[in-house]
Amino acid sequence: MHLFYLPGFTPGEINELPEDESKHALKVLRLSSGDKIEVTDGKGSVYLCEVKDSGNKACRFKILSQFTGKPKDFFIHIAIAPTKNADRIEWFVEKCIEIGIDEISFIQCSRSERKNINLDRIEKIAVSALKQSQTTIFPLINPLVPFKSFVENCKDDHKFIGYLSEEHKELLQKIAPANSRYCILIGPEGDFTQEEVSLAFKKNFKPSSLGHSRLRTETAGIAACHIFNIINS
Amino acid sequence: MHLFYLPGFTPGEINELPEDESKHALKVLRLSSGDKIEVTDGKGSVYLCEVKDSGNKACRFKILSQFTGKPKDFFIHIAIAPTKNADRIEWFVEKCIEIGIDEISFIQCSRSERKNINLDRIEKIAVSALKQSQTTIFPLINPLVPFKSFVENCKDDHKFIGYLSEEHKELLQKIAPANSRYCILIGPEGDFTQEEVSLAFKKNFKPSSLGHSRLRTETAGIAACHIFNIINS
Repeated sequence: MHLFYLPGFTPGEINELPEDESKHALKVLRLSSGDKIEVTDGKGSVYLCEVKDSGNKACRFKILSQFTGKPKDFFIHIAIAPTKNADRIEWFVEKCIEIGIDEISFIQCSRSERKNINLDRIEKIAVSALKQSQTTIFPLINPLVPFKSFVENCKDDHKFIGYLSEEHKELLQKIAPANSRYCILIGPEGDFTQEEVSLAFKKNFKPSSLGHSRLRTETAGIAACHIFNIINS
Repeated sequence: MHLFYLPGFTPGEINELPEDESKHALKVLRLSSGDKIEVTDGKGSVYLCEVKDSGNKACRFKILSQFTGKPKDFFIHIAIAPTKNADRIEWFVEKCIEIGIDEISFIQCSRSERKNINLDRIEKIAVSALKQSQTTIFPLINPLVPFKSFVENCKDDHKFIGYLSEEHKELLQKIAPANSRYCILIGPEGDFTQEEVSLAFKKNFKPSSLGHSRLRTETAGIAACHIFNIINS
């Protein structure tokens, strides 16, 4: 069954898909009166619906039932330095949505190889991933901000920085408590600078290891996302 | 420092890189006498070496020191149905090598969308991933075989099938013991058939869940690989 994502959707007297989605439903999927679809608001609710006779206009539907997942008691926020190769950061976004993520931020680090990101494209990939994996939580996706600014304004409860050194080798899965609100910083291929690490420590980001091997930026991001989900399963 | 992969390398009187690697070392990287390189045999040993005067011929080197990681007490084997989109399976191979994997098999399932794979290309991607992530274990990569044949001949100790149903919801991380030799079957986008699942059960593959969300084939493969590594960290 097809899943449609309608940000912030709430049932009303008349329910219809937005223009793009209607076009997709009626012209591409060729849905018609009586066909079942699912609609999610991206905030944990999914509605089982039935398409109503729409002719060629906006695709209308009536709601048959609603399911709202029980509220999650953990929140995953990953702040990552965009990779030089845009494909890789797009993979990261897609995989995290499949696995489960609540917020994604992009941070501009000293050694970042990329100075800008195509947020529109990333949003489209995120929506696609949501529909494909049939998840119902659409993450908040924030634009690129300087490292310093992100670190100074981060309000999550348990903050981590993906960082390995002789003195700091604690595995993320061992130091992150369950049922919490996490944020982890994932650095560029060239790693964080000593200055960035010091600033993060000053702001209570704990150093954490993502395993014994050296991971690419996007792999580290996915590993962190997966670990947070695992400790809460 | 550059890492070169020489399958099955053992130090000798004269040590030199194979033709392709020599060309890369001398013409692309422009290494010369005195430059340091690392050489791995893909079986856990890495040698710190120094380039010797080679002129334009094969790049010769002398060994300064050797490091052999302590033998792993676990072994990860993932058998996966190749995805329709070749990028995705190549991405899976790359990520698993970064995270750590010992053997990769490709299985032809009833609902597989792809009937063949480009093993050469996959091997090249694997070698690239090994060098990039500086790991020293190169996995055994097996050609595509029919599901039935794989399941009947699999000799690993703890066998799993990525499969979710009402009766079976056990999480892989809860049922896989540490320090073991694992194999997990990852099915195609359309899932395993009932017949395939029954055959796997008969051959002692335990059903296991990879989490609460529905994962694409390549994501499921990476998640499984990551879980096996985590339970042994």
